[in-house]
Amino acid sequence: MKAMIIRQFGGPEVFESAEIDKPAVKPGHVVVKVAATSINIVDTMIRQMGKELPLSPDLPAVLGMDFAGVIDAIGEGVSGFAVGDEVYGCAGGLADLQGSLAEFMLADARLIAHKPNNISMAEAAALPLVGITAYEGLMRAGTSAGQQVLVHGGSGGVGHIALQIAKHLGADVYATGGGDAQLAMIENLGAIGINYKTESVADYVASHTQGKGFEVVFDSVGGANMTNSFEAAALNGQIASTVSLVELDLSVAHFKGLSLHVVFMLIPMLHDYQRQAHGEILAELAKMVEAGAVKPVLDSEHFKLEQVGDAHARLASGKAMGKVVVSV
Amino acid sequence: MKAMIIRQFGGPEVFESAEIDKPAVKPGHVVVKVAATSINIVDTMIRQMGKELPLSPDLPAVLGMDFAGVIDAIGEGVSGFAVGDEVYGCAGGLADLQGSLAEFMLADARLIAHKPNNISMAEAAALPLVGITAYEGLMRAGTSAGQQVLVHGGSGGVGHIALQIAKHLGADVYATGGGDAQLAMIENLGAIGINYKTESVADYVASHTQGKGFEVVFDSVGGANMTNSFEAAALNGQIASTVSLVELDLSVAHFKGLSLHVVFMLIPMLHDYQRQAHGEILAELAKMVEAGAVKPVLDSEHFKLEQVGDAHARLASGKAMGKVVVSV
Repeated sequence: MKAMIIRQFGGPEVFESAEIDKPAVKPGHVVVKVAATSINIVDTMIRQMGKELPLSPDLPAVLGMDFAGVIDAIGEGVSGFAVGDEVYGCAGGLADLQGSLAEFMLADARLIAHKPNNISMAEAAALPLVGITAYEGLMRAGTSAGQQVLVHGGSGGVGHIALQIAKHLGADVYATGGGDAQLAMIENLGAIGINYKTESVADYVASHTQGKGFEVVFDSVGGANMTNSFEAAALNGQIASTVSLVELDLSVAHFKGLSLHVVFMLIPMLHDYQRQAHGEILAELAKMVEAGAVKPVLDSEHFKLEQVGDAHARLASGKAMGKVVVSV
Repeated sequence: MKAMIIRQFGGPEVFESAEIDKPAVKPGHVVVKVAATSINIVDTMIRQMGKELPLSPDLPAVLGMDFAGVIDAIGEGVSGFAVGDEVYGCAGGLADLQGSLAEFMLADARLIAHKPNNISMAEAAALPLVGITAYEGLMRAGTSAGQQVLVHGGSGGVGHIALQIAKHLGADVYATGGGDAQLAMIENLGAIGINYKTESVADYVASHTQGKGFEVVFDSVGGANMTNSFEAAALNGQIASTVSLVELDLSVAHFKGLSLHVVFMLIPMLHDYQRQAHGEILAELAKMVEAGAVKPVLDSEHFKLEQVGDAHARLASGKAMGKVVVSV
């Protein structure tokens, strides 16, 4: 079968076209004919950093985590799926798991769900990693109706799904962005936009929460921005963070009695730990999508499998608005 | 009325005996005739550090947060309590709240509960601050039956109550201590003792959890010990910490997808925020005490009101085993 492989880690130019063996099905798994895949920041980190990251695969490797496609073969012990079913998931592209930049992909059946029936394959492929991350963070933070929820990075991959789910849960949702296009996207998705370049945390905490702070802060920016999340949180507030590779002074968290939930959604794939939770979350997300409450936004530029290097470069450029998708 | 006051911040010698006005009752409050109070680390920090801490009172001040005693007067709007009732709570000794090192104390009725009927006034006075802290941390960490729970500092004020509550919730409880006396106290309270001076985290995670780590880690030591808590936690583990005034590398928390709950139990007193939660927790704790599941351990040395400086010195010495109590 056709695949895009890498034989070395490095820039977006390392991808090359190759013919490799189609994966054989095995117990508990399905083989999927991939229709589309989307690029996530972690894909670009693996490609660039290689074995500096504990999760990178051995070379040569097929990268790509997210996919949507059609079931081609069913392994022993798999129930609830049939050949020909349209499915989506995040199931490969790291450690010993072959990725989705290929015509066919082997996927643990616990990691997948039926694709929402009202969106395209490209849109479905955009959703798994960011959707599971957003859902897990909001759930661990106990997000509920009537709360004031702030999403940092509201026009980003995780952020734009997190704000839609939070709104669906009945929260009053606010989201930060750094420019007119980002804020337009945020407002279009139903949240109140905050320009973090022109408003200080103290200012928007004062104007939107009467100084009390947000009950839930979803930080999809991470790193040094965590300090802003601590400042924006209410007493005993809940913070979900997707990027906590940072050294941080926790004093503010102490005096406010905060909870910090670090979301690292690759754990089930990396450690074969509670994988069924991901299939369950994807089934929940499919319901939200079919109800019209959640819809992934795609970048204006689309790519074919052979152009995956360009797709990585597009995401890395910071110019993409919405998810960068590759059709297979 | 008689009280021990401080006119300056400093060492344990700053306490002096004085006659001050008995507090008048006010709406939503009760006046309690104090029978006993206990010393907490935060009391010694306020006495020593003064206005370096954002929570210290103006001088002259009556310190002391915990108390047990008898209701002397009931304010307008208070229900569920009557003059003569035996009560306990943590309700003063910081900011603008008069403390318990006095014959009488004004207490917000939402912060108190009826004293457990099977323990002494001294024992009841030992419980509020550490009991609420332990309870809040375990609840926020979602502690439940069958989990493996590790308590760092199992013979300390908060730790020895946390391990009893965790056991009462049905968890398998392990607790660290640094010497034979500490470990004997831990085992006597029903937990499995771990000598952190002779066993590495990796060793006891291997021997007690088959390398998987603890689902809940209650860190009552804090500071640099948080690194040990991260190391001891399972994937997606929950950590409750009582002392997070520290700068910390969160990378381990990232790759394990941990949740960190910072417990700062003075928030309701300092900010008049959800005070009723403390009364409710104390009522729950009273049930656990009356069921024989939780019992505060008192240090072998007892003190009278005039000796409060000696009581502070005893706690600061690190030689106390169990809570240091002062009879009023």
